[in-house]
Amino acid sequence: MLKAFVKPAKPEAEALEQERKAAQEKLAGFQMKIKEAGLPVMVIFEGWGTAGKGGTIRRVIRNIDPRFFKVTAMAAKPSEEELRYPFLHRYLKEIPEAGKFGFFDTFWMQEVVREKKKGALTEEAYHKWINSINTAERSLTDNGYLVMKFFLHISRKEQAARIKELQKHKDTAWRVNEEDLEENKLYDKYLDGYDRYLDDTNRSIAPWYIIDAKDAKWAELQVLRFLNQGIETALQNKALAVPIRQNVFRLLPTKKLSEIDLNKKLTEEEYKKELEELQDELRVLHNRIYRKRIPVIIAYEGWDAAGKGGNIKRITRALDPRGYVVEPIASPEPHEKARHYLWRFWTRLPKDGHITIFDRTWYGRVMVERLEGFCTENDWQRAYNEINEFEQELHNWGAVIIKFWVQIDKDTQLARFTERQDTPEKQWKITDEDWRNREKWDEYEAAVDEMLQKTNTDFAPWHILESNDKLYARIKALRIVVKELKKACDAR
Amino acid sequence: MLKAFVKPAKPEAEALEQERKAAQEKLAGFQMKIKEAGLPVMVIFEGWGTAGKGGTIRRVIRNIDPRFFKVTAMAAKPSEEELRYPFLHRYLKEIPEAGKFGFFDTFWMQEVVREKKKGALTEEAYHKWINSINTAERSLTDNGYLVMKFFLHISRKEQAARIKELQKHKDTAWRVNEEDLEENKLYDKYLDGYDRYLDDTNRSIAPWYIIDAKDAKWAELQVLRFLNQGIETALQNKALAVPIRQNVFRLLPTKKLSEIDLNKKLTEEEYKKELEELQDELRVLHNRIYRKRIPVIIAYEGWDAAGKGGNIKRITRALDPRGYVVEPIASPEPHEKARHYLWRFWTRLPKDGHITIFDRTWYGRVMVERLEGFCTENDWQRAYNEINEFEQELHNWGAVIIKFWVQIDKDTQLARFTERQDTPEKQWKITDEDWRNREKWDEYEAAVDEMLQKTNTDFAPWHILESNDKLYARIKALRIVVKELKKACDAR
Repeated sequence: MLKAFVKPAKPEAEALEQERKAAQEKLAGFQMKIKEAGLPVMVIFEGWGTAGKGGTIRRVIRNIDPRFFKVTAMAAKPSEEELRYPFLHRYLKEIPEAGKFGFFDTFWMQEVVREKKKGALTEEAYHKWINSINTAERSLTDNGYLVMKFFLHISRKEQAARIKELQKHKDTAWRVNEEDLEENKLYDKYLDGYDRYLDDTNRSIAPWYIIDAKDAKWAELQVLRFLNQGIETALQNKALAVPIRQNVFRLLPTKKLSEIDLNKKLTEEEYKKELEELQDELRVLHNRIYRKRIPVIIAYEGWDAAGKGGNIKRITRALDPRGYVVEPIASPEPHEKARHYLWRFWTRLPKDGHITIFDRTWYGRVMVERLEGFCTENDWQRAYNEINEFEQELHNWGAVIIKFWVQIDKDTQLARFTERQDTPEKQWKITDEDWRNREKWDEYEAAVDEMLQKTNTDFAPWHILESNDKLYARIKALRIVVKELKKACDAR
Repeated sequence: MLKAFVKPAKPEAEALEQERKAAQEKLAGFQMKIKEAGLPVMVIFEGWGTAGKGGTIRRVIRNIDPRFFKVTAMAAKPSEEELRYPFLHRYLKEIPEAGKFGFFDTFWMQEVVREKKKGALTEEAYHKWINSINTAERSLTDNGYLVMKFFLHISRKEQAARIKELQKHKDTAWRVNEEDLEENKLYDKYLDGYDRYLDDTNRSIAPWYIIDAKDAKWAELQVLRFLNQGIETALQNKALAVPIRQNVFRLLPTKKLSEIDLNKKLTEEEYKKELEELQDELRVLHNRIYRKRIPVIIAYEGWDAAGKGGNIKRITRALDPRGYVVEPIASPEPHEKARHYLWRFWTRLPKDGHITIFDRTWYGRVMVERLEGFCTENDWQRAYNEINEFEQELHNWGAVIIKFWVQIDKDTQLARFTERQDTPEKQWKITDEDWRNREKWDEYEAAVDEMLQKTNTDFAPWHILESNDKLYARIKALRIVVKELKKACDAR
């Protein structure tokens, strides 16, 4: 679409100034409406080097109260640290909260096109990235984000003139970087790359807007026109129901919770022997994982009092504390609630070579959030697919994903609840909420069955830990972790 | 996505039957809601030969009242007659009305994949078709259609067994066609083709749903699940505001109406001489057009009493009546209003080698419908782009598109209105509505200026006919038609 672009008719200076002012006022007027509607607005600027992305952002935000926006300038290349996370990570962690603007001086386009141009991406890898980006943008817009993407366009001649002008003066020369020079030299090739990227990512949910960026004021007005129109449209669509896509992932068969044999047991003796052996093995594996830079994600879900905490401890005791983190997940903080529900997990990922153990996870979306009405039916129905996409992204990055469901029966829970209540030093572990949840056992069981069935992918399968006997469950968990880490180490 | 598809877990016979009945009831319950909401629902079935598309449709519609649906079985190949229209034509003319279901036994997928497989489509042509399809599906959903696409999937082995079974009996053998045999022989290659097509057209606005079609009842239930979910979602989103995409078409500069010089004149003598010469040329050209099978679309818009009718007559007098049609466009009939606003134009296209002259056109969307509030602002804002896409589709098909704006000034209109009112045999030509429209002259003028500017593409540019002097306007129109037809004939 970039090659087909023809500059729109520019109004006369006076008319332009008048319209620009009116558009600025309109945008300013939207601040409170966005806030009230809880609409998160991402405004992404991409385009040619020296096209004036920073300047345009400065102009556009002039009348927006600083409480309502944040400007993020993405570095052209990920840092060493960022390279240890998935490609999308450094972008997604910057998404704005509901009711606020996030302005971005370049986003994931820049990195993809430049890597492709350098020959660092094969066709296959390019397609994978494009797919990741389209999926991420859809997941954002499906969850209520407005995503406005602007490409600031200038001609080769104009770019050359700007570079020359900047180089003239000592105090502006630093603003010309090697990429700009390279881009200008190979303008037509970069044009091909940008044009292709724009076509590949120009979806209805987050379309591209190309801006004639030769004149700064005129560029500002073009952006304001589209931005105001986009906001207006989004504000009209409150509580939008999004079509549920088919969950096309290779799903492994699952058992229903009611079919699980909970009589499995270990003697204290068997337990001790196995525990020691497995922990020794895990210790060695943790080292190999670290050296091979394999990221590991261990996710725990299960009934209250099922024994998650004790189970996790038996694993962490074998690990080097510098190489793992346990993330206990409670209800989201306000700043987390104000963002995409997966954001608080994206920002808690391990870097490569490290292990993160989640004590409760993103599956809250299809359990507690579903049953307590914290999200709409449309939201949780969509979530199975979104979660599979999320885990697939982590798998493609190279992560080992181990998901545990810690299972007990209703009687065992009651016994443990009662014991907690009757033991002063355990009383903190039992709350009214636990009792309330227990009343909804059947509803939870149905939701868990559905969850296990719809998210049991071959790249991130569920493992059931039969935990009426906690000893049995602990050894089983350790065995699975050892097996999976061994497999991953041997394969790389 | 087809290759990644894994069969969903099939419920036990009894549970399946129970859920199927409940889903059927739910679907039946949607009939009146769809009617009330004015929601048009397209349910498209594609898939392998012998996968049971017809049978599945029969099962799904069982409880729907015949007043609420229509089943259309698309022929695998276009007829000779249909080949004389654009590729999309035979499909788009079948779209359902608002408040009704349209069930389709195959749609445009089948034709594309088979043509590609046969080697009849180059990569470039394939991409063009995919682009046409994605654009058409977006235009439908943007204008309120729910589009549900199902792919009925069976294995090679299953297909072979079905073919064999059908061939056994004389009265079913005819149902196996050559395509089915070919598909089974080259199953893996067709799988590649279908998989690619599904990926290329799997957009959020109209996603694909793959159905495990081995068992008929189970296939029915899978379809019902998705269909009910899709309808439920669509019904929640009344009066959806759709993001306005950028109008990225090569636009030529335009004059504002106020800048047009209306003093141009011809003497009666000049007029007669030129008229005769041009009509002679046109007569010859009409013949060449016919033999070269070039479709021609001439579109007239202009003020009331601007002289459109007389102008058109001067053209048609030179044409062979077997080769042209004049389509006078008034307000849409109820069955037209109930469909996509371009539908009544899609169904009035000329076949190749023929000429259709539209006396008023699809531009009503951004003039009368805009100003009289017959559509929402979101609708007409989107329409410039949709209209350019529509005309581009016609251009790509090979059509010559000539668009006339017949311009007069306000005084001339008043004089002509008065003359009509005072001349008994012309009184039928003037109505109260004409006077009412005249009162809104300034609003119309602004809308026309915007329309000319936003739809003046290089493949379908506007021509202004200065018609204060009708003689001048007629000759100018003829000259343009002759020039454009000549250009087209010489080029092919």
